[in-house]
Amino acid sequence: MRNELRVAVVGAGLMGSDHVERLANRIAGASVVAVVDVDAERAQRVASKAPGAIAATELGSLLTGDRIDAVVIATPGFLHEKTLLQAIEQGKPILCEKPLTPDAASSWRIIEEEQKIGRKLIQVGFMRRFDREYRQLRRLIESREMGDTLMLHFSHRNAVSPSSFTSQMLINDSVVHEFDGVRYLTGEEITTVQVRLGRPTRHAHHGQHDPQQVLMETESGILVDVEIFVNAQFGYQVAAQAVFEDGIVDIGNDIGPYIRSSGRWGGAVPPSFVERFNDAFNLELQTWVDAAREGTVNGPSAWDGYATAACCEAGVAAQKTGQKVKVALNEKPALYSDEKVATAA
Amino acid sequence: MRNELRVAVVGAGLMGSDHVERLANRIAGASVVAVVDVDAERAQRVASKAPGAIAATELGSLLTGDRIDAVVIATPGFLHEKTLLQAIEQGKPILCEKPLTPDAASSWRIIEEEQKIGRKLIQVGFMRRFDREYRQLRRLIESREMGDTLMLHFSHRNAVSPSSFTSQMLINDSVVHEFDGVRYLTGEEITTVQVRLGRPTRHAHHGQHDPQQVLMETESGILVDVEIFVNAQFGYQVAAQAVFEDGIVDIGNDIGPYIRSSGRWGGAVPPSFVERFNDAFNLELQTWVDAAREGTVNGPSAWDGYATAACCEAGVAAQKTGQKVKVALNEKPALYSDEKVATAA
Amino acid sequence: MRNELRVAVVGAGLMGSDHVERLANRIAGASVVAVVDVDAERAQRVASKAPGAIAATELGSLLTGDRIDAVVIATPGFLHEKTLLQAIEQGKPILCEKPLTPDAASSWRIIEEEQKIGRKLIQVGFMRRFDREYRQLRRLIESREMGDTLMLHFSHRNAVSPSSFTSQMLINDSVVHEFDGVRYLTGEEITTVQVRLGRPTRHAHHGQHDPQQVLMETESGILVDVEIFVNAQFGYQVAAQAVFEDGIVDIGNDIGPYIRSSGRWGGAVPPSFVERFNDAFNLELQTWVDAAREGTVNGPSAWDGYATAACCEAGVAAQKTGQKVKVALNEKPALYSDEKVATAA
Amino acid sequence: MRNELRVAVVGAGLMGSDHVERLANRIAGASVVAVVDVDAERAQRVASKAPGAIAATELGSLLTGDRIDAVVIATPGFLHEKTLLQAIEQGKPILCEKPLTPDAASSWRIIEEEQKIGRKLIQVGFMRRFDREYRQLRRLIESREMGDTLMLHFSHRNAVSPSSFTSQMLINDSVVHEFDGVRYLTGEEITTVQVRLGRPTRHAHHGQHDPQQVLMETESGILVDVEIFVNAQFGYQVAAQAVFEDGIVDIGNDIGPYIRSSGRWGGAVPPSFVERFNDAFNLELQTWVDAAREGTVNGPSAWDGYATAACCEAGVAAQKTGQKVKVALNEKPALYSDEKVATAA
Repeated sequence: MRNELRVAVVGAGLMGSDHVERLANRIAGASVVAVVDVDAERAQRVASKAPGAIAATELGSLLTGDRIDAVVIATPGFLHEKTLLQAIEQGKPILCEKPLTPDAASSWRIIEEEQKIGRKLIQVGFMRRFDREYRQLRRLIESREMGDTLMLHFSHRNAVSPSSFTSQMLINDSVVHEFDGVRYLTGEEITTVQVRLGRPTRHAHHGQHDPQQVLMETESGILVDVEIFVNAQFGYQVAAQAVFEDGIVDIGNDIGPYIRSSGRWGGAVPPSFVERFNDAFNLELQTWVDAAREGTVNGPSAWDGYATAACCEAGVAAQKTGQKVKVALNEKPALYSDEKVATAA
Repeated sequence: MRNELRVAVVGAGLMGSDHVERLANRIAGASVVAVVDVDAERAQRVASKAPGAIAATELGSLLTGDRIDAVVIATPGFLHEKTLLQAIEQGKPILCEKPLTPDAASSWRIIEEEQKIGRKLIQVGFMRRFDREYRQLRRLIESREMGDTLMLHFSHRNAVSPSSFTSQMLINDSVVHEFDGVRYLTGEEITTVQVRLGRPTRHAHHGQHDPQQVLMETESGILVDVEIFVNAQFGYQVAAQAVFEDGIVDIGNDIGPYIRSSGRWGGAVPPSFVERFNDAFNLELQTWVDAAREGTVNGPSAWDGYATAACCEAGVAAQKTGQKVKVALNEKPALYSDEKVATAA
Repeated sequence: MRNELRVAVVGAGLMGSDHVERLANRIAGASVVAVVDVDAERAQRVASKAPGAIAATELGSLLTGDRIDAVVIATPGFLHEKTLLQAIEQGKPILCEKPLTPDAASSWRIIEEEQKIGRKLIQVGFMRRFDREYRQLRRLIESREMGDTLMLHFSHRNAVSPSSFTSQMLINDSVVHEFDGVRYLTGEEITTVQVRLGRPTRHAHHGQHDPQQVLMETESGILVDVEIFVNAQFGYQVAAQAVFEDGIVDIGNDIGPYIRSSGRWGGAVPPSFVERFNDAFNLELQTWVDAAREGTVNGPSAWDGYATAACCEAGVAAQKTGQKVKVALNEKPALYSDEKVATAA
Repeated sequence: MRNELRVAVVGAGLMGSDHVERLANRIAGASVVAVVDVDAERAQRVASKAPGAIAATELGSLLTGDRIDAVVIATPGFLHEKTLLQAIEQGKPILCEKPLTPDAASSWRIIEEEQKIGRKLIQVGFMRRFDREYRQLRRLIESREMGDTLMLHFSHRNAVSPSSFTSQMLINDSVVHEFDGVRYLTGEEITTVQVRLGRPTRHAHHGQHDPQQVLMETESGILVDVEIFVNAQFGYQVAAQAVFEDGIVDIGNDIGPYIRSSGRWGGAVPPSFVERFNDAFNLELQTWVDAAREGTVNGPSAWDGYATAACCEAGVAAQKTGQKVKVALNEKPALYSDEKVATAA
């Protein structure tokens, strides 16, 4: 019997806590052995959800020796770089929540460290790649059975956003998923980004322009548009429409039960990404655990983290000018050359 | 230019009034020249909606002479027989709201009179035959492109029913549409009827068992079930599912606009048959006018009125016993022998 | 009884022929008295579909005297101006197929002539305003029950286009419907147009860039995007999604029957606009006839024809530069000041 | 850390093999330690899919001692009784594929043995209780937020059936799922069963009457109808519609991606129950493992196995007579008295 993967989860906030519960109760072949958070009490509270897990306030000493096999990083993005470098140094497999790091320069440093090790250690938390319909759409695109892909139309709508969620975060925290989604679905890098700011909703917070429309082009000239709307009120919705030479494919349709009552037909919209992508999160973690036990990575890589960081930088610049901004990417290192953007099995 | 069909509408209630408005404003080639109702004031009020129409309290004198070309009968069912006989005697084309007459015996007398004239004069108001999807389903069944039809599942739901709407009327006034629908769709007569009375809704009125399930068999053994539910609260819905050897077809699905708001996706259910079958009523009248101007009938015939009356009699008997009841039909006269049940173009 | 509207139809091509059949067989209160086409034989063939209609090769002599009450113009767009001026001079109500005229300058000349007459005579053939769902969406927007409208996403897809259909015609003949649609739905003029040319389909003809994405802004800053795709292969589709402050509304969803067969669920896509907008064409003509008999216009006006011509000019310019182009409009004359863009009852 | 549940899987056919893979790769907290099959080679082949599992040809010796914690039974139904009795004797938690045993009398013997032990050991493999929509529908029914449940309409359609699949098996192997489904959804026992045999499909095998309609009543008078169609050709479909006093709920709608191509809109129908209920199988096993590790049962019980066996007996009798047949149940033992029919968390 293969040994279980012994995981340390760094960051005991909402996402870290969810990952602890998943690893403890839903994922085969893994167990949580440590929960790390600067807030000792919070670390303890979350650790108690996983039988046998200890709480700690720093990862460092856990990494040396043979007490843990792998690391999940679920701290705020600006703290990722340090933890990543520690874990890479010890050669531990890592699942790092998005963003890899907050900007392209720091992401590139991670890329450089991973190259020194000479094998991939990092999977970035772009969970949409594990959504059933995203995967089916990617297969349809790859198969070319409906011809070339010509356009992609996305909507990304949240019921409400925190008041601290700035205009820039619409790009960096929300559209980052579509940046990766476009790359995943098409297997192409994004070359330009443009942003349109129209009529804002009365529900927008101070410092937010909401909604926005983000336009992109890919290497082969596929036109992409994304509606990002983080105070859409009605619920959470993520949908995409692919326009092919020989047909149209929609993913992210509303689901049942289907109810007729009070003069209306229809069903419920999920309140947030937690319900919408629950299955995807499970599959993301299971895929990471399965690969980590084999010493491989089979999900979005550090290159994907770097490339989306570059898109975000272009997007934030484009918000200011309204003009098309080019996405600047370094040459892709050989370590990632097998990825057609990146492969999730 | 062909002359316009000059129509007398008998009965100035809700349905008669609607027909007057349709003929006056939406139907090509016809005009309303008289509105007849025992209530003179009501006749006058409705007549005023059709430019040039007069009001009258009885049809008799209008029928003789050359003042009208055709008759629409929209009085309560128990009054139909007398008006039908008058109009048949004068050889006038008739659109008679369902039921033709309230029972099989009186309907058979109409059949006998029409045979004496030797040509069809009567179209019965089974408007579902003019619904776009009913027609498409009939074509699919006739074409046999999905093989034989094996089963038909119907739902027929009203938001509310009047307190005077008895259990018997669930059969005679509501399921009568499915009796004709089954005959229209399959081209077969119905051979047996069974009724299941289960758990009643708290919204049922005194003297009503609501909902009910009506089971039928056709000549070739197609199994039919109908849910009739006249206090379903949520709105009006008429739907059917046909089970073929090689696939399944649904008609009567809910329609758009499609709205996402307040945590729900979906749309509005129409409140009543008026909105649901508006287009069908228009087409029914236009088809009748077109045929009447040519001296023909191109819709459900007196035979359809008679056969459904026989089904209703069996259905009411079946409500009492819970057992299968055979439908008793006289032999079909030659006058109707061209009808595969009945043809709407 | 009000008199029937005696109509001359100018242009006996596909659209003119359809209008003749509608007026003859489906529209109440109108009759076709003349069909005019430079091709005498074609005029005769189409005239034969309307009992009592004569054929003619020019409209001029018919307009004088009292033989016709109104004119339907269904010739190619470049021929409209002359016929319009003739009919306006005689004070005849006109239903003019889109475009009013091919460019803003000539449309403005029509505007000037209509002002001289001092009352509106012209309805332009933007039939989408008569589509059930377009009307419902307009009501939702006007009611503000879901708050302000923030964005509009359109798709406009044809199965195939003729080989003569140039890139410019994607704007002038196809997107012209969305130009008017945006104006109708929002009650606002369009202020800027931008065009994105991405990866073309292999099914595009020489001289066509297909598909394209057209971006617009309205007076209040509503962002609009239109995918125009005239060789989309799968069938005909026209859909729109409105993004409100408090919800999302989709129109143009696919319709039934709903079929499960051969491993697929779903239904048929209509092959062309003829099937999709059949009901809208009927209602458009009936609305025009009803209003013309009252001496009024109750549909898209000459101003709508002029304003969309100005949008088309901006769109064609925008195709060349890829940049935002401003739409230049003259001041709106008092004659059209009652229109919140334009009102269809 | 709680110990992993060490499971022996008995039966290495299709279903047993699937369960081995699930337990090995998708289920947290369990491992397969033995695969038992009379065919030694087959046992070995399947055991090789689970790291550390041994192969055996009989369960007996494994049960004694401390080598296994729990048993999954996936042999043909007629072999269940013996294995169940062995495992009950050793006090091992059991997941037994449906049917519990092939008839009510033998199921009652299992009930008696389990009572001797004095606690529940058995979960029966009615996986629909673990389907997301079934669970949501049950909650809606229990909550009574749409009033009382009045009717349930089911369809259960397979693309094709093996030629050995007899008419009796339509009840015992297919409708058995609806027997349990009705009990699960309503929390009521089924009191009568009637079967209608109509027009058979040309795709039916010799010895099969296909499709059939099964009618049931529950304790409170809820009317149920089930269309069972095991050669429906188009694919696999399981759907249900609940009729409430204040609305209608459908589950089992078709899912995306949503495709428009070749003149059709729609999507793919799953070929079999494997794809349709994949998530339900995962949840069923996880629920069983979680409960077994706590020494409890949290899914359909032996009582559910017994009660559905009684329904099947009534159904097979009803096939022969066409009449309503009463379902005969012994009194419910105290051991199962907490179950409102049966509770899945």
